[in-house]
Amino acid sequence: MTQVYTQSHFIIGVDIGGTKIAAGLVDSEGEIKSQARAPMVSDRGAATGLAAVTSAIQLISSGIADKQISIGGIGICAPGPLDPKTGIVVNPPNLPCWRNFPLAEEVGKIYRLPVKIDNDANAAALAEVYWGAGQGYGNVFYATIGTGIGTGIVYDRRIYHGRTGAAGEGGHMSIDYRGPRCGCGKPGCIEALAAGPAIAKRAQTKLTDHGSRSAILDLANGKIADVSSEMVGQAYSAGDCMAKEVLMETVELLSIWLSNVVDMLDPEVVIIGGGVAAMLCPLFDEIRSRLPKYCINSRCQEIPLLKARYGADAGIAGGAALCSTALA
Amino acid sequence: MTQVYTQSHFIIGVDIGGTKIAAGLVDSEGEIKSQARAPMVSDRGAATGLAAVTSAIQLISSGIADKQISIGGIGICAPGPLDPKTGIVVNPPNLPCWRNFPLAEEVGKIYRLPVKIDNDANAAALAEVYWGAGQGYGNVFYATIGTGIGTGIVYDRRIYHGRTGAAGEGGHMSIDYRGPRCGCGKPGCIEALAAGPAIAKRAQTKLTDHGSRSAILDLANGKIADVSSEMVGQAYSAGDCMAKEVLMETVELLSIWLSNVVDMLDPEVVIIGGGVAAMLCPLFDEIRSRLPKYCINSRCQEIPLLKARYGADAGIAGGAALCSTALA
Repeated sequence: MTQVYTQSHFIIGVDIGGTKIAAGLVDSEGEIKSQARAPMVSDRGAATGLAAVTSAIQLISSGIADKQISIGGIGICAPGPLDPKTGIVVNPPNLPCWRNFPLAEEVGKIYRLPVKIDNDANAAALAEVYWGAGQGYGNVFYATIGTGIGTGIVYDRRIYHGRTGAAGEGGHMSIDYRGPRCGCGKPGCIEALAAGPAIAKRAQTKLTDHGSRSAILDLANGKIADVSSEMVGQAYSAGDCMAKEVLMETVELLSIWLSNVVDMLDPEVVIIGGGVAAMLCPLFDEIRSRLPKYCINSRCQEIPLLKARYGADAGIAGGAALCSTALA
Repeated sequence: MTQVYTQSHFIIGVDIGGTKIAAGLVDSEGEIKSQARAPMVSDRGAATGLAAVTSAIQLISSGIADKQISIGGIGICAPGPLDPKTGIVVNPPNLPCWRNFPLAEEVGKIYRLPVKIDNDANAAALAEVYWGAGQGYGNVFYATIGTGIGTGIVYDRRIYHGRTGAAGEGGHMSIDYRGPRCGCGKPGCIEALAAGPAIAKRAQTKLTDHGSRSAILDLANGKIADVSSEMVGQAYSAGDCMAKEVLMETVELLSIWLSNVVDMLDPEVVIIGGGVAAMLCPLFDEIRSRLPKYCINSRCQEIPLLKARYGADAGIAGGAALCSTALA
């Protein structure tokens, strides 16, 4: 059976990483109807970088060439710093090909379509509001917890950009100014305390210090240095005590951090996605139950803490959300 | 010479505290043309509390009875929690007279004028945007540092209220989850680390631990327990080393905290008011120069850090700002 597409109800969402690009065809319900991957070429000049992006877009558009559909726009998630208003990619460390590169304009010229760009967490936050766990809410705090912690703020159903588009970097909020230094240089960022590598490190430290038995070590074939956050999650699911200890410490840190966020933003809902979040999902109630202890917001317990709709596809959906006004 | 007032260009701004009320006549430039104080009666029922407010308003309106002016509205700063949308004061700990009290409606009924309420830091933030250091900016982070730290966010020239009006409580952002407990119950809030009492405490601890000479101790007549943040400020101005040490530690904490705020909100400008801020004013450049070390916002050094226009009158001006749309 041929899938029926109706005119203009589609956006191409593109997610540019340091080494690969994902693109997808997204409908007006936020469904990703098809997707493709292409390598990103980030070290051979601006034009080559652009060609990598268009080749990913081409994979999608060629797949729909024979169907009765038209594309309303292209939305792109790219590494920051970037300027969402002008569509310029400023100078991302992992995309040396682009320095003050007018990505939106260049892609727009090629396809003669509206093109929007933003960073991935901002875009994913918007996708959750339009099509995901944030539907029905206008005022949302979104966090994706994986190797790092990316966050985005949606206010009145629009991304909170701040002055230059650099707002919403809640993953680099320090809750421990004397704590371990984050990759960004600041001590005690929640990313340095509670993202995947920090969870693995915490488990490794406990295994080294206590030398006690734990299912975590079995999963790592006895090699402490090989312990990952995924193994901690697996061991926790299997009832391992040390894994529980590690995750409960993580939960406590995330609770204090979220209390900072809630007291600052008073969102209608908090949405959490990302690989580590999937593992923490059974502990969301635990995090929420700790908020009243730390928030001065007297109604913080009313704020739902929800799992994101989008997982690994968040960048594609997010890209599409940026252009969703172009959806008929 | 009689002052000339033109029709409708005035608002009455009211600042309700736990023990006293300040009211003032504010013009369309944010000038406070007259002001008055009255005691707040917070422990004898809702009607008595309301009467205290109206008596303060009366002091202002009777003073203008013979002048060619009319009042466009009344704006009131009150202790939270409160709901700025409905004008209801919920249950402020230091105003036991009011529980779910419709303050805006009640005052409006008496004076037949538009009445708005909000918390003092939110209102003061708006006053700075309309008439103070934030003129020309739409996206402002305001902090008042005194006995506590109150903050307000203005975005697109409107107060960022969040879901229930409880947003903007940046003073209770923890940057030290293992740190000293704040009055609010959370450990390591910036209020517990850098407001007036924390500065005094820091000096007292140094004086006790080191037993060394300091002008701070002279100002306190040798009594460590009597040391106040004002004395630290005075000693600093006189070149005292220990006072400098205390203030530089405070500056460092405020810098880390502000880097969290800037990474979250990317404001166009940061405005700081309050008694302690006046003392820290010579150190604003020091705070600003530390931001790039902690912010991931690559353009944070462009964000000005300005002293608030309003000092002790911030509540009156803030109240008036809430009603400023009523200004002709």
